[in-house]
Amino acid sequence: MRKSIATVSLSGPLSEKLTAIAAAGFDGVEIFENDLLAAPQSPEELRLRCADLGLGIDLYQPFRDFEAIPDDGLSARNLRRAERTFDLMERLGADLLLVCSSVDPRAVDDDALAAAQLHTLADRAQRRGIRIAYEALAWGRHVRTYDHAWRIVERADHPALGLCLDSFHLLSRGSDPKGIADLPGEKLFFLQLADAPLMAMDVLQWSRHHRCFPGQGGFDVAAVVGAAVAAGYRGPLSLEVFNDVFRQAGAATTAVDALRSLLVLEEQAGLAAPPAPVVPSGFAFAELAAADSEPVRGLLGALGFARTGRHTSKPVELWEQGAARILLNTGGHSRGGPALTAIGLETPGPAGAAQRAEALLAPVVPRRRATGEAPLDAVAAPDGTELFFCRTGHPDHPSWTGDFAPAPCETTDTATALHIDHIALTQPWHQFDEAALFYRSVLGLGADESLDLADPYGLCRSRAVAAPDGGVRIALNVAPGPDTDGAGPQHIALATDDVIAAARSVRERGGSLLPIPANYYDDLAARFDLDPQRIDTLRELGILYDRDDSGEFLHCYTATLGRVFFELVQRGDGYRGYGARNAGIRLAAQQACQHSA
Amino acid sequence: MRKSIATVSLSGPLSEKLTAIAAAGFDGVEIFENDLLAAPQSPEELRLRCADLGLGIDLYQPFRDFEAIPDDGLSARNLRRAERTFDLMERLGADLLLVCSSVDPRAVDDDALAAAQLHTLADRAQRRGIRIAYEALAWGRHVRTYDHAWRIVERADHPALGLCLDSFHLLSRGSDPKGIADLPGEKLFFLQLADAPLMAMDVLQWSRHHRCFPGQGGFDVAAVVGAAVAAGYRGPLSLEVFNDVFRQAGAATTAVDALRSLLVLEEQAGLAAPPAPVVPSGFAFAELAAADSEPVRGLLGALGFARTGRHTSKPVELWEQGAARILLNTGGHSRGGPALTAIGLETPGPAGAAQRAEALLAPVVPRRRATGEAPLDAVAAPDGTELFFCRTGHPDHPSWTGDFAPAPCETTDTATALHIDHIALTQPWHQFDEAALFYRSVLGLGADESLDLADPYGLCRSRAVAAPDGGVRIALNVAPGPDTDGAGPQHIALATDDVIAAARSVRERGGSLLPIPANYYDDLAARFDLDPQRIDTLRELGILYDRDDSGEFLHCYTATLGRVFFELVQRGDGYRGYGARNAGIRLAAQQACQHSA
Repeated sequence: MRKSIATVSLSGPLSEKLTAIAAAGFDGVEIFENDLLAAPQSPEELRLRCADLGLGIDLYQPFRDFEAIPDDGLSARNLRRAERTFDLMERLGADLLLVCSSVDPRAVDDDALAAAQLHTLADRAQRRGIRIAYEALAWGRHVRTYDHAWRIVERADHPALGLCLDSFHLLSRGSDPKGIADLPGEKLFFLQLADAPLMAMDVLQWSRHHRCFPGQGGFDVAAVVGAAVAAGYRGPLSLEVFNDVFRQAGAATTAVDALRSLLVLEEQAGLAAPPAPVVPSGFAFAELAAADSEPVRGLLGALGFARTGRHTSKPVELWEQGAARILLNTGGHSRGGPALTAIGLETPGPAGAAQRAEALLAPVVPRRRATGEAPLDAVAAPDGTELFFCRTGHPDHPSWTGDFAPAPCETTDTATALHIDHIALTQPWHQFDEAALFYRSVLGLGADESLDLADPYGLCRSRAVAAPDGGVRIALNVAPGPDTDGAGPQHIALATDDVIAAARSVRERGGSLLPIPANYYDDLAARFDLDPQRIDTLRELGILYDRDDSGEFLHCYTATLGRVFFELVQRGDGYRGYGARNAGIRLAAQQACQHSA
Repeated sequence: MRKSIATVSLSGPLSEKLTAIAAAGFDGVEIFENDLLAAPQSPEELRLRCADLGLGIDLYQPFRDFEAIPDDGLSARNLRRAERTFDLMERLGADLLLVCSSVDPRAVDDDALAAAQLHTLADRAQRRGIRIAYEALAWGRHVRTYDHAWRIVERADHPALGLCLDSFHLLSRGSDPKGIADLPGEKLFFLQLADAPLMAMDVLQWSRHHRCFPGQGGFDVAAVVGAAVAAGYRGPLSLEVFNDVFRQAGAATTAVDALRSLLVLEEQAGLAAPPAPVVPSGFAFAELAAADSEPVRGLLGALGFARTGRHTSKPVELWEQGAARILLNTGGHSRGGPALTAIGLETPGPAGAAQRAEALLAPVVPRRRATGEAPLDAVAAPDGTELFFCRTGHPDHPSWTGDFAPAPCETTDTATALHIDHIALTQPWHQFDEAALFYRSVLGLGADESLDLADPYGLCRSRAVAAPDGGVRIALNVAPGPDTDGAGPQHIALATDDVIAAARSVRERGGSLLPIPANYYDDLAARFDLDPQRIDTLRELGILYDRDDSGEFLHCYTATLGRVFFELVQRGDGYRGYGARNAGIRLAAQQACQHSA
């Protein structure tokens, strides 16, 4: 279906918004009145600009406080105001006007009056070649639901008057979208789409500050689309999102994020079928870039990794233990020291995975490979992390490991880790919701609830995305302050079946673990029924403890190098979390280390 | 009364919080469990540290999910958990424990059981020299109001068991605090104070993210204090504020802000009488600092100011027209070009105004004056702007103007402005509420509602504080992004009785006015019943228009120099606002100028 977006959804001046919207690949726009008024370009210039960019002007909005106003001169003034708006729309080349239900305290609860006034408006509009889409605002004075708006439109009975449906207004008031399917499709003039996190708060504030793109919140937006299409609606799917974060983020990336959300929504509603997701089964590798690589080698050695290979054409080393693999790229350099720059995802179908990613607008990473090297399909996540789709050591597909020549191997006596349990990435704060939707939709992962973790300097939002079998888990965090934008910590959690032995080995090999305050262990004794000797062991090694209904979770951390640290985790049967209860302790301990460093 | 604060109210590691709390002048602290667990210091070390700082440990908190749990072994485990907590409190030297009402889904609605279990707990506590303060959480499983908690405490009837009252929990559920006055004072063990903006949202989220210091929100916190004191409460007034902003702000300034809020609260509740506010009657001057002063001189000249004096000992010029005075300090230098650094407030009693400011913890600005110069009382506002308390040209007080020698005066033909109408200052985003409370309490100004203004890159919060007669108006804005921290725009609005003539004069004198898009004027014609010729004049000069029930408001802007621009305003009879409706247009026009500059 045709895809549009309201200009209010993006930041910046109108001309830059239009450029970003066209570049992302949208078909049309809703021009928001305030954007037009503040623009230095005339309506005629904007009309030409949209035409040049290949964007249709699908809607002009909003026209407020028109219907159900008793006639004491005000309704005549309203009609004059409408004619001025039609003048402007003619200059702009827009032929559909959104009229939202009155919030004016002078409006009366009188459907007959509302219908009569809207009939007059539609008549005036029709003479100018313009149509009117009437929308129920969730906080309208009297008209707040789509079915009430429909009764008025039906009563007005004018060919130039129809409905505008908005998924936020509908779902925030708990309306059941099923009834939409019974409306006459030709009376559905426009469909605006927005999602929102489920929150118990005043609906106007909720709408103004917390709307998000479909798939980023808690509403069943696809049900609204499905019902409208069932009714016969064939107009644009148009995003209208007011959000404090998007208002500050760059228009170009937000526009791509927005269009991706519509592509996923079309798939959910059964209106389009992009290549199906190929869910990754595990981590093939994590790649670290470090200009000063010696400290990283020391840390990897202490963790029990051995250098097993060197890339045949690039300054990249392969380090392995069990099924855990780390690539150390010594040619790259990253702001703030060592950083995690790429993740290899083990997938049953690398080509299919890449096709889906491309269909969902993930930027394809240019492939630089020498003759004879394995083809690697890779795309970039919103934060720039490269995702490689791998099939390691399978006869049916070239393996990336073939590009590495065996290195003289310094084997370690005891392997510490079995495989990568999860990877945690700090997201720029204005890309948190975008990142969660990206990983879910592109990789077919499921998302946990969003959590607030207490950091000494603020709350840190955290949300994990994971494959159903837990083979791939990625924790997305957003740092509290804007200071760490783009350079927040990242960590790699290694699974072990004996974290106590693993922690001892790390120490014996000269690695240092994050010191945890003694007070934590005193509290552990009060909180859990644990053997005092066991607590002493945890205390000695700085191992944190958590438990849920199904199992125990023990974990400890290495020191941080640049942006990166490692975690060792031992998951008891069925424990599904990440030790969120201990995050505040860990964050404070890391802060203390930074201060003393 | 004794003044305390919960450590959770401030950011950073516990040791730094304690230092900040002591430095601000608090008497005691509530130690928050998570702060203690994450601290590298032992409880004994923290006890010593508090003693060294002169801080009493007035409360340890919270102990959760204890009461009304049916006995299936859990209550025994809860008692053991309590004993471990008592151990810790003994080491810490704390003798009062906050127990908040259970949120555990296993808790039952059984006051008899709750009372019996709390009796047992109090008995155990008493043996250790500890008392229990029981508090109703607003989102408790069954116990959510202070009167319900009191019924349980009364029933338990144990000398070591009393109530903790929390103004947020009380007022967020709409409880009437009057009933508190009838409780036995000796059973009120502790009083926690927090305010919050009035919001319609889930009470747990409201509490966790939006609490603020008394006087910064919409609750009548003084009524709670008054009722508790009437009941006989003589313990600490203790702040417990969870706030996303304070968690990120510096602990030292937040602690001062916090203590100021308690001083104002004591005054409101009639418990203390600091020097009374001396409300300023007008602006004596605004001072601009500019290293490159020639462009500022050009702008002042274009606005109709004439240089009338030079300071006898400092590189400061006095520029005047009508009753508007600007000081141009060419010795200072400021980040990002010319900036507004000081405001002179015309006041009937400079000494009294300064005494009140000092009593409310405003930092006194060191006075550097030569012999014979007028004494100037000055304090610093939270954003560093210096406020001078002046009495210009009155025989009963030395006038600051006496320190200026007359300059050869280039008079202008027509004066443009009559006086300073208002001054707008961008506040660092984490000091917005602090600034509003500062101006209200220190200067005795009233505050308008907080508004959200649409900027092309986000929402800009704005709140005005003003004297009842409008003689002094200060608009506090907070920029949308954190990027502009500490260097956002400032502006001086000059009152005129003919903004059209004033704008023409500015142009004739070579000044440039902010260009406003033509689309704005097309819309003005649709929105208001204005004479087309008048609209053409406004359009020609870039004058914006607004109207409220009592009058018209016309205003226009100069170009920006550094951080500073001027506004010319013509207020019709009784118009009280600042043209907020036009703020989005102005902000977009300024952005466009910056981009093209």
